[in-house]
Formats: sequence, C-alpha cells, structure tokens
Amino acid sequence: MTKNISELINAATEKTLPDLVFKNAKIIDVFSLEIMEGDIAVLDDMIVGIGEYHNAKKIIDLNGKFVSPGLIEAHVHIESSLIIPENFSTVLLKHGVTTAVIDPHEIANVMGTEGIQYMIDSTENTELDIFIMLPSCVPSTQYESSGAVLKAADLTGFYSHPRVLGLGELMNYPGLLGLDTDLLQKIYDAKSLNLAVDGHAPSISAQGLNAYISAGITTDHECETYEEMKLRLQRGMYVFIREGTAARNLEALIKYVNYKNNDLICFCTDDKEIIDIEKEGSIDYCVRKAVNYGLDPLLAIKMGSYNAAKAHRLHDRGAIAPGRKADLVILDDLENFTVSSVYKDGKLIDENPKTDFLKIKNHKICVSDDINWEIKLKSDEIRAIGLVPNNLFTNEHIMKVDIDKSGNFIPDSEKDAVKLFVIERHNPDNNNVGRGILHGLKIKKGVIATTIGHDSHNLIMTGYNNEDFSLALKTLKEFDGGITVVSDGRVLAVLPLETAGLMTSKPVNEVLKNLEELNKALIEIGFSGNFSPFLSLSFLSLPVIPKLKITDMGLFDVEKFGFVDIEV
Amino acid sequence: MTKNISELINAATEKTLPDLVFKNAKIIDVFSLEIMEGDIAVLDDMIVGIGEYHNAKKIIDLNGKFVSPGLIEAHVHIESSLIIPENFSTVLLKHGVTTAVIDPHEIANVMGTEGIQYMIDSTENTELDIFIMLPSCVPSTQYESSGAVLKAADLTGFYSHPRVLGLGELMNYPGLLGLDTDLLQKIYDAKSLNLAVDGHAPSISAQGLNAYISAGITTDHECETYEEMKLRLQRGMYVFIREGTAARNLEALIKYVNYKNNDLICFCTDDKEIIDIEKEGSIDYCVRKAVNYGLDPLLAIKMGSYNAAKAHRLHDRGAIAPGRKADLVILDDLENFTVSSVYKDGKLIDENPKTDFLKIKNHKICVSDDINWEIKLKSDEIRAIGLVPNNLFTNEHIMKVDIDKSGNFIPDSEKDAVKLFVIERHNPDNNNVGRGILHGLKIKKGVIATTIGHDSHNLIMTGYNNEDFSLALKTLKEFDGGITVVSDGRVLAVLPLETAGLMTSKPVNEVLKNLEELNKALIEIGFSGNFSPFLSLSFLSLPVIPKLKITDMGLFDVEKFGFVDIEV
Repeated sequence: MTKNISELINAATEKTLPDLVFKNAKIIDVFSLEIMEGDIAVLDDMIVGIGEYHNAKKIIDLNGKFVSPGLIEAHVHIESSLIIPENFSTVLLKHGVTTAVIDPHEIANVMGTEGIQYMIDSTENTELDIFIMLPSCVPSTQYESSGAVLKAADLTGFYSHPRVLGLGELMNYPGLLGLDTDLLQKIYDAKSLNLAVDGHAPSISAQGLNAYISAGITTDHECETYEEMKLRLQRGMYVFIREGTAARNLEALIKYVNYKNNDLICFCTDDKEIIDIEKEGSIDYCVRKAVNYGLDPLLAIKMGSYNAAKAHRLHDRGAIAPGRKADLVILDDLENFTVSSVYKDGKLIDENPKTDFLKIKNHKICVSDDINWEIKLKSDEIRAIGLVPNNLFTNEHIMKVDIDKSGNFIPDSEKDAVKLFVIERHNPDNNNVGRGILHGLKIKKGVIATTIGHDSHNLIMTGYNNEDFSLALKTLKEFDGGITVVSDGRVLAVLPLETAGLMTSKPVNEVLKNLEELNKALIEIGFSGNFSPFLSLSFLSLPVIPKLKITDMGLFDVEKFGFVDIEV
Repeated sequence: MTKNISELINAATEKTLPDLVFKNAKIIDVFSLEIMEGDIAVLDDMIVGIGEYHNAKKIIDLNGKFVSPGLIEAHVHIESSLIIPENFSTVLLKHGVTTAVIDPHEIANVMGTEGIQYMIDSTENTELDIFIMLPSCVPSTQYESSGAVLKAADLTGFYSHPRVLGLGELMNYPGLLGLDTDLLQKIYDAKSLNLAVDGHAPSISAQGLNAYISAGITTDHECETYEEMKLRLQRGMYVFIREGTAARNLEALIKYVNYKNNDLICFCTDDKEIIDIEKEGSIDYCVRKAVNYGLDPLLAIKMGSYNAAKAHRLHDRGAIAPGRKADLVILDDLENFTVSSVYKDGKLIDENPKTDFLKIKNHKICVSDDINWEIKLKSDEIRAIGLVPNNLFTNEHIMKVDIDKSGNFIPDSEKDAVKLFVIERHNPDNNNVGRGILHGLKIKKGVIATTIGHDSHNLIMTGYNNEDFSLALKTLKEFDGGITVVSDGRVLAVLPLETAGLMTSKPVNEVLKNLEELNKALIEIGFSGNFSPFLSLSFLSLPVIPKLKITDMGLFDVEKFGFVDIEV
C-alpha cells in the first residue's frame, strides 16, 4: 500500500497520468452544498484530484454536465426485491446507486448463518459495493417456526469480514427494554468492536428511545411523523427516511428537513420490489421526490450520498473528493436527477444482465404432500383475519360461516371468506400447519400461494379448492419456492423463487413478465380489490403487527400476544 | 458490559434511579441547532436520557439555564502552554473544554518515544479526556540535532493504546510529495488501522492538496484565508480554525462559515500559552469570538463540540444525547458562553491545582559548562538574522559590525546586534554550538535564554556578556530547563521548565508570577520592542520558515535550504 499511496500522489500531481479525467464537470460539492466547476482525476478506483487536470490515459469531456457522488442505499433487504444480489447490483447501479447496506434478515430466517454466508459470498464480486449488517432478531418471535434461531454466538464469526459493518435492525426493542440477555450480548459484541447498530423502533416512547440509544442503537428507519423524526434527531440518532414499495414516509417527513438539521438524515428503501425499482428507481427516486417536494437538489444529493456514508462510517466514499471511491453519476439534469451514465470504481458500469451467479445450496421446500386441507370448526361463529387493503395491520373480523356435515368450513365468495394456511417449510421433521379463515381477500375462486411470509417465511396459501391447494403446493415444491396462482386444476401463473424461496436468479425482464402474469391470473380468479394480495398475504404471518395474524403454530392475537381459537 | 448496558437501559426508563438529573435545562441541540427544554438524566459518566425525568440520586434544578456539550479542543500541543498535562487538564476544564486531542510533537523532539510515553502516562487519569495523535515529523529537518529521530517503526507500538487516535500533523508535505518512504510508511500504518491523519500544509497548491488528501490526510489547521479554507472543504478535509497565542485565524475565516458548509469545521488553539488561556480562554474563546463576529451561538457551539468529535471519530461525545459522555457545561449566558459550572463524566469538576503528578524521568540539559562564547569573524560585513516583530518569518539583515583585536564580534546596542547561540542540549556526546548574530531584538544588555527552541528544542541564548551567558547556562542546567533573563551577573528572573525543558509542574499562579517577573526583567535589560522576545527566540531555530534561521549546526538559509556563513 505504500506503493499505492505513491501512485495516488503521483497521479494527483500529474507526475504520472491518471487513468481517467473528466473535463469540464459541474461537481456537486456535498460538503458546502455548492457547485464547483472543474475536472475530476481518477486513478484505478479512486478519485485523486479535483480542480484542473490536463492529461490522462482517457479523457471524457462532460461539457458542463453535473456530476453527483454515487448514491448510497442506507438500509435494504435485497430479498424483498425478489431478485438475487448479482442482478440487484446491476439494477441499482443503473439508478446511480453505487453502495448498498443490506440486512439479510429474510434469508437468515430461512437458512440461518448459511443464508448470511450466501449473501456475503454472492455479493463478493458485485459491481455494486454491498455492505452487511448482521440480522439481530431471527426469529422475530417465539410464536412461529423459522428456519433458524440466531444467537449472539452465531453472529460473532461474521464481524471479521471487511464488509460487515455492524448489527442489523434491532426490531425487538421490547426485548431490549426487558433486558433479554442474548440480545444485549449481540449489542455488546458490536459495540465492543466499535461498530454501529441499526434500529427499528416504530412508536417507541421518548424514554424507550433514550434507553435504546443509550444501549448503542445508532440509526432508525421507522419514522412516519415529524414528531418521531425530531425525537430521534434530538438524541443524535441517524434517521433513514424510507421510501419503499409499501412503507412510504418521504412525503410526511421531507418538508421538515433543512440546512440546520440534515446532518443525520439519509434515505433508504428498506423493502422495494423489483417492479417498483424499475418503475420509479431506488435512492435516486428518493432524491427526485425530495426535490419535487421543494428540497434543494444539492441537499437531497448530500442526504443520498455523504450523510449515508457518515451513518455507516464509510469514510472512503459519499463525495467527489480526493481519496474517495470514484463512484460518479453523470447527470443530464440536476432537478430530476436524470442519470446520463454511472461510473463505479472509475469504470463505466456494465448494464448487461449477469449470467454468472452463485447458486444457493441446501435449500428445499420441506413440506409433506399429505396436507389436510380441511378446517374443522366447533361452531359457525368465527374470528376471521380481516384484511385491511394496503396495510400491514389486520382486523379481527367476527362472522358466521357455513359448515359441511363433517363440521368443515366451506369457503364462500359471497361472504368473502376463504381458507388460510401457514405451513412450516424449513424442517422436514416439523409438520406444523396453522389454519385460519381470511376475510377481505376479494377473490372468487382458486388459490394463491407464496413462500414469502414474514418473518419466518413459511408457506402461506389461501383460497377455495382442496385440489387447487394441492396443485399450488406441488408447484412451489417443484420450483423450490415462489409465488403462484392456481385455479380449476391449472397453474395460471408462477414466479419461481428458487433462492431460499425468496429470490430468483431469472433475468429482470423475465421476472417482470412473471409478475405481470401473476397479476393477470388474479383477474382470472375474480380478484376485485385495490391492493396487492401477494404483499398482503406475505405479512399475515408477522405476529408483531396487530391485530389478528397467523403462523404455522396457529391463529395469533397480537394485542393479547397469544394464540386464539378460530371459533369465538 | 452487558450488565452495564442493562444498567443504562434501566436508568433511562426510570426503572432504577439515575445518579444525577438536571431539571429544567435549556439543552443545546447541536444536531438541529435548536434549544430543547427538558431534563438530562445521567448514570455514572454517561447521559442516559433527555426529556422528562422525575427522580434521581441527585437532582439539580437549572431553572432554565442553557447547557452546552463539553467543548473539544481539536488540536493542541500541551507543551506550548508551558504547564504539565495534569495542570493543563484543570485549566481547560474550567473553560468548559472536556476533551482535548494533543500531538506531543515538542516533547517527542526532545525525548522521542519516552516523551510520548510520558504524555500518555501523565494523561491517563486526568479529568480532561486527552487523546493522542502520534508525532509524524521528528525531527522537522535533518539540519538540526533533535533529541530523537522517530521512524515509522518507532510509532507502531503506540497505536494499540485506546487513546491514540491516529497520526499527528504531517508537516513535511514536501517529503510526502517527494514520496519519502518512511513518511509514507507512517501514513500506511495509520490508514491500515482505519485511523485518521492530521495535516499541516500552509500554502500548499490545489494539486498538492489533492495528493495530500489522496494519501490519507484528513484534517488541516493552517488556513489563513477563505480561499485556503474553501480548497480544503471542497475536498472533504476537516478544517480546524486556529486561534492560539501567535497564530490567530478566526477573524479571517469565521465570516465564511454558514449553515450549509459548517459540517467539516471546528476549532483548535494549536499553541497557546497558559497566560493567554487564563486571560482569554481556550475553545470557549473561539466560540465566544465567533459569536462576536456574528455567528449563531448554536452553530459556534456545534463547531466547538460535535464537529470536532466527528473529525476525530469520537462517537461517544460532542453532544447532549443518550449514550454519550456526560460532559456538560452549564452556562450563565449563551451569547458570551459564560461558564457557570462544568460537569465532566457526570461529576462537577475539581478546580483545585493538582499536587499529585507524574515526574518526568531521564531528562537533563546535556550541555558542557565549557562553551566558547566568542564569535570569530573573518570580515566585519555580516548577515544577521533580522527579527520581524510578531512573525515567524525573519529577514537576512546585511550589516557592518565591530570586531575586537582577536577578530571576535562585539555586540552593540546602538546597532542592535547581539550574539546568538543554539546549543545542542540532548546528547552529552554532541557538543554542537551554532553561532550567529541577531538584529532587532531591542535589548540594551544582559542575556535571554530558553530551552524552548522549535522544533528540536535546543538551548537558544542571545545577548551581550560572556559571564551572563555562563550564568544563564548554569541557571537553566540547574532547573533542568526553562526561560531566564540574566544581567550584570544576576539572574533577574527564571521560569523553570523541568519537564523536558518545555513544561513546568509548578501551580498555574506561580507560573503566571514567573512570567510576569520575566517580563519585568525585560524592562531591566532595556527591552523596547512591541513583541515577545521569548516567543520570537523560540522560533529562530525552526529551519522551515524563511528566511534566515539558526540551528545547533549553524546559520541556515531556508530559501537556499542550506547552511551559510555569517560573513557575507
């Protein structure tokens, strides 16, 4: 590296030729929120100088175009995009995002440390720089069967990896306030290495927040209101304004960001499906939307780059300055952050889909073919899960249903009451099936099934006909996971998610086609709602968001924090 | 520490009593530049909460007083204060400074690694938190005999100390640009531990700065103009605005600081004598002066605390927030930063002078008594060092002088030409005496002598009479170093500096008395200048600032970068 330092010095002072010089750039200065007109000199993957440069191995004249530092995604679960890391990299780079900090929380719930290792290995050579926060809360509760239970001791080995930056979002803040020993050990391990700990604490009280931050949590991405954001900023916590597929907080928060208080604010998407990334963008969309709501574009870019670098203590990036990564976004237009071209590590990005990727090992859908699809009821007055469109919350919907002569529930499209199953899919020795009744799905026939079921990602299936349930199960087992719509003995559409039942290695255009087919299939089964039933379904098994949820262990009342019978 | 985290959580949520609660505080929020009204809860040395707290082991009602985070001195050489670290700690705390980042560069030039070790050991238990940047350039040049030569390998062992934050100001930037192998190795060592490197690069070019920052230098405190500051900020370098005894840059720079560009700007004193700290203050003075020049007091405080913490990657302090050090300054008045009381680590500071301190070992003034005080000249036309009042630069002053019959120079108060000696004081086997003639000192008789002589800190003596030279030498040897004024066979005044010939363990009030006596002695020897001859003298031996300087090896022309004869 002394040689390397020498090379940087020589190129910076034009004693040797830089590899690349961008001439006539309007450089976005995130340190002072100004535009600096000049050149940018690059050696290998580093910026070695800004100002005036005369010669280089390659010169690109920008003719006065704006250049932004590469954007940084402060917190994202790649799994939620539905595509594997190699393809996620290609997609984000196109949008000017050159670094992403991920929390492989979903795959860890399915495959434990093996899942984390897969995410580390598969991101080893992506063009996009991907850093990892270690999942802190696997499983999210004890009321479900996940594919793994990760204790503090399971995580420590990962901290020595140079791309592991700290501990991932500590969602279990009641556990923290209750002094859960293993949870505190996880925080201790990260803190003693001087690493950061991401937070996730919606609706936490001011004192709870004091405790949370005192314990060592340094960031949060769960602000929905100005008051929540202010509570966190006052206490020195980084706030990641989130704008994903479902949770969208930017509009509510951005008007409160100003020159005085922006130091700790950056952007994240948290969970964003590939279809929305393709349609809108990633962090570039956050920047664009912020500007649209009146924010100074330079400040929006600072939040999307430099502030996120600070939050994650990545001192080698986040700005166009000597000694930092040559991650540069050439813009056609500043106000709309219209990306003209993107340079990662000083090289023009490769937009071609990746054909070379890491295949996941040891993943199977471990569910017997022999499921009993009947839901036996002792009474016809039941509590259905009442689906709330476009919301992770549900109701407890008390209703009367029909029962056949054997005492089995009969789904009814008039009453909008269908069967609902959560089937443990990780452990061949665990045959748990949680049974329930769902109200408000608004389909007339058929079955919808998915292997995405937060947070344990068991198999969730809902619909009418036993044969269709069997076919949907067979189909998802065949593909090692996925999302499917089945009706009248036919598979209408399927998106295979062979990677842990969460992600696919298919090229993005094929994924988009499959998603379109799934949506068309919804029409065939008479779906009349104004929401995504796939997304709604995936969160019916998350037993931390009220009111009524379902896991492989049964129907769960989140407010009572215990299981309940279907019958009232 | 898991127990510790539990305790923080419990105190934050009032499940157990905090040790201390400040009620009714106006809390200065450096994150958003706002005032928050509320309480501050402290457990041991940590803030565990802000907001509303009801009970505690001890409650202090602030009745609406402002509370500032403890200030942070971003860069200081304690040696320049003239007092030892234990007393420096007491003085700075009174001024609301609770953390200081020091570079023991001066003592390292005298005593090498032993000097660094002394500074680490003597600051181990000071109330003031003292962090260390390792001296990078000892000696400053090869044209002087220092007490030590510190190579990269000499420094590496210190990096494991938890209070060592990085590599100290890299003054030798020509060496860096010239790819000095050992210098680059020092940077490499710090960088590979992900540590920061302080800079010092006055008048460096834009490309030189690019190289400097590319190499890994992260801060600079040598800005005198807005243009210099802007060049650095644009490149992501922290700028420490310096306001010390001699170098005062605040007035020139502060008007360019605003809400958009302050992220990277903080304050330092660099070199400030105890008499000035007592008179004006330390970083509190910088804050006060900045406000006086029109800066928002909240922004000035942010620069003096939070920004300095960021610059040095001290994530556990710099703000009033949970999880950070309970370093709190209660203010009587915000605009003038009038300190009412100071809490360090949650405890009211102890303002008593320290009687328990670490004595330095193995330090002696190694100069023979047998110095030849004659300056033999081959011609009466000579080049004198032309002293420039209040400036580190000097002139080459060509003049005619008187010579006795043996060819020896005769000092002459009419011509304002006196003898000047730099005598190697570190190595008993080195009997170097540099001889020269000084013009512009403006004394009529006697001798001034000091063991402070930047950067090698050899003994510097100037004046008229051979017997007085001998007495001055005897005096400083007796005290193991110091500053003295001697005349007509009498010691008129002396400040002993027994600690490496740079610092004294005397109580501050005695030091101030000694300094007053030295100033009175100047009057007795007819001093008629409008500057500090002690300070001027101390910099005559620094062979990196033009034009004519003197080291123990002889008269040195900085522009020619070589030795020259006295005779023209």
